[in-house]
Amino acid sequence: MKQVFHEIFLNTKGPGLYDFTKQTQDFVKKNKFANGILNINILHTSSSLIVQENADPDVLYDLNNFFKKLVPMDNKLYKHITEGKDDMPAHIKSALTNSHLTLSIKDDSVILGTWQGLYLFEHRLENQTRKIFYHFIGQ
Amino acid sequence: MKQVFHEIFLNTKGPGLYDFTKQTQDFVKKNKFANGILNINILHTSSSLIVQENADPDVLYDLNNFFKKLVPMDNKLYKHITEGKDDMPAHIKSALTNSHLTLSIKDDSVILGTWQGLYLFEHRLENQTRKIFYHFIGQ
Amino acid sequence: MKQVFHEIFLNTKGPGLYDFTKQTQDFVKKNKFANGILNINILHTSSSLIVQENADPDVLYDLNNFFKKLVPMDNKLYKHITEGKDDMPAHIKSALTNSHLTLSIKDDSVILGTWQGLYLFEHRLENQTRKIFYHFIGQ
Repeated sequence: MKQVFHEIFLNTKGPGLYDFTKQTQDFVKKNKFANGILNINILHTSSSLIVQENADPDVLYDLNNFFKKLVPMDNKLYKHITEGKDDMPAHIKSALTNSHLTLSIKDDSVILGTWQGLYLFEHRLENQTRKIFYHFIGQ
Repeated sequence: MKQVFHEIFLNTKGPGLYDFTKQTQDFVKKNKFANGILNINILHTSSSLIVQENADPDVLYDLNNFFKKLVPMDNKLYKHITEGKDDMPAHIKSALTNSHLTLSIKDDSVILGTWQGLYLFEHRLENQTRKIFYHFIGQ
Repeated sequence: MKQVFHEIFLNTKGPGLYDFTKQTQDFVKKNKFANGILNINILHTSSSLIVQENADPDVLYDLNNFFKKLVPMDNKLYKHITEGKDDMPAHIKSALTNSHLTLSIKDDSVILGTWQGLYLFEHRLENQTRKIFYHFIGQ
């Protein structure tokens, strides 16, 4: 049983979903992981991680748009406004989604459905560099 | 330290919560798992997994009803409408819940509270067969 | 590869976020865990777990307030009302957040971003004692 830790950085340009499925699969292949758990944490509280459909880009647009309407960028709604009108909504959107994904690796591959991809969900307006932490435990 | 992989299929008949606690406990018992992690992934993006109350069926009704109102099946709200009025809401409801559950196994049992059950949360209107992927790592 | 199980109890006094980052780090230090997975489950369905910002208390206030408005305590909206007007909203808020967190331990520390803390999110009005279940697997 071995454990491997690794960090990647993703650059984001405003709210929306950023696919990092390939980086994740490459990490698994490069390290020749056969079977195990891959735990992925995002080390921020204003962006998050989700598994979503990888086929139609409209799904990603609609998802972002739904969250935009559900959690309005309106300073009158929040006390925490010093970091910008997008900051508190970003924390709420993170709470509504995930700070981490726990994936299974079998036969050198990440277990995902045919239409599933891994996404960073950015909630801040300005460009960001986001740190994602990989932790593999297995064989 | 051993690892075991297994798939089960659940048939769903419209939106709502489908209990799969017993199938999960049976999988643990049958394989005589003592202690470890059981990672459970649903391989779809229009249904999801949650841990919820297992006592009063009204809780399951109310949960489904809340999500139905929160994420309306209204084509005017979405760009992704080719797969039916229920498809984009299904993706959103999945994003608001979980694509996977990571459970602890101790002394041959799944660690759950007295009132906790494991549920597949179906978000599509038509009958579906859903694939759930079990991965045990432990002893 | 070893496994350690442990329970802690947190007392809550009404809806809001309760920081249990220190208890978690202390559990890791005391047991001299070097590297591994720490799986944390809350054994209730009317309170939940989230990773959130640990800097400005206003963030915690706004989060709780957002969920309060999103899921109203209004008996007319629900069938499950016998346990009080706050019970069904509590189940829904739990479904919208997490019943468990899966954290990575590296070099004797819980992997968290600078501004990330671990919170129990209480959704019931009355005082509660909540059981949280720790499971470490690793070295």
